[in-house]
Amino acid sequence: MSEISHATVSRLPRYLNLLDELEGTQETVSSDDLAASAGVHAANVRRDLSDLGFQGTRGVGYSVTALGDRIRKELGIESRRLVAIVGAGNLGTALARYDGLARRGFDVTAIYDTDPDRIGQSIGNLKIQQMENMPVDCKVGCFDMAILAVPASAAQSVTDLLVAEGVRSILNFAPVRVNVPEGVAVRQVDLSTELQILSYYG
Amino acid sequence: MSEISHATVSRLPRYLNLLDELEGTQETVSSDDLAASAGVHAANVRRDLSDLGFQGTRGVGYSVTALGDRIRKELGIESRRLVAIVGAGNLGTALARYDGLARRGFDVTAIYDTDPDRIGQSIGNLKIQQMENMPVDCKVGCFDMAILAVPASAAQSVTDLLVAEGVRSILNFAPVRVNVPEGVAVRQVDLSTELQILSYYG
Repeated sequence: MSEISHATVSRLPRYLNLLDELEGTQETVSSDDLAASAGVHAANVRRDLSDLGFQGTRGVGYSVTALGDRIRKELGIESRRLVAIVGAGNLGTALARYDGLARRGFDVTAIYDTDPDRIGQSIGNLKIQQMENMPVDCKVGCFDMAILAVPASAAQSVTDLLVAEGVRSILNFAPVRVNVPEGVAVRQVDLSTELQILSYYG
Repeated sequence: MSEISHATVSRLPRYLNLLDELEGTQETVSSDDLAASAGVHAANVRRDLSDLGFQGTRGVGYSVTALGDRIRKELGIESRRLVAIVGAGNLGTALARYDGLARRGFDVTAIYDTDPDRIGQSIGNLKIQQMENMPVDCKVGCFDMAILAVPASAAQSVTDLLVAEGVRSILNFAPVRVNVPEGVAVRQVDLSTELQILSYYG
């Protein structure tokens, strides 16, 4: 698979959101509509999709189903992904209850905490697990992505534990950068960044 | 002020994060270090900052303080911004407790909910306010940005109320698009988008 740019990768989920909305209601979509969904120009869309080896039909647009499948394949989400949430505080609980994850193919299969008052309690169908049990409870394959919703002070040690367990994708909400070995992907979610971008526009 | 591209605007907060970290410890920063902070090439950094009318010195780099001031001015965050959180559930509570906002110049001045069990309770120094009080409690200027942490079903009506109150910047965590009149900026935070991008890399 050829390398595509990070900017293109970042736009693919936005195109996919629109395609998921349109699925079942219309067969094709224009580059203009895709462009609007990602806040870019139609020329960007055509270049992005051409980088995926995907061509639209002039005057018709792109096939909603075929393009959705192609993007899911590129992103590695053709099958559902299994996700653990570490940290069952307010943020972890909010994430565990956020039904947008399941709708987009991410199944939360476990939630961990260290607080004895929280362990054993339930969030929806999930029982909060003791972090120390992670190596025992989690056979390879029970999750391969993790969301960090822990305090900054715990982020690195939890990351090390997850990496040791074979997790290769970490979404980090802790307000601190974590170090990972080569081959492990981390995305840092920084809510103040969003507010700063918003400040420019509003 | 000349228009800068959305891609540039999106990178400015990342540069600023690094500048804030370096402030007080070093006087200049290289385009390479700025590039690493945003995951782009040094050439991008030079172009972005040149678009702001800001030039580095060859072999020396950029002044940490001057560049930080310039970016804050461009983003409209030279002075602190006052933010209301609407929705005091798990996500709203997590956001109200997130100290990263204050560190980056965003002061949460109010939190609202409609649930009688929550109204009057405190999150840190903030007492949860009744949403219906918003027009009464909030004189112009008590906040000019808002974070929506409400269920999808309430997002549009809350947005309408905020817009009527004069709010011009809304960060929307509800998993639904909201419609706003011209002149109001909305950013949609979609956590599954982050996971989808992460899937590509890990």
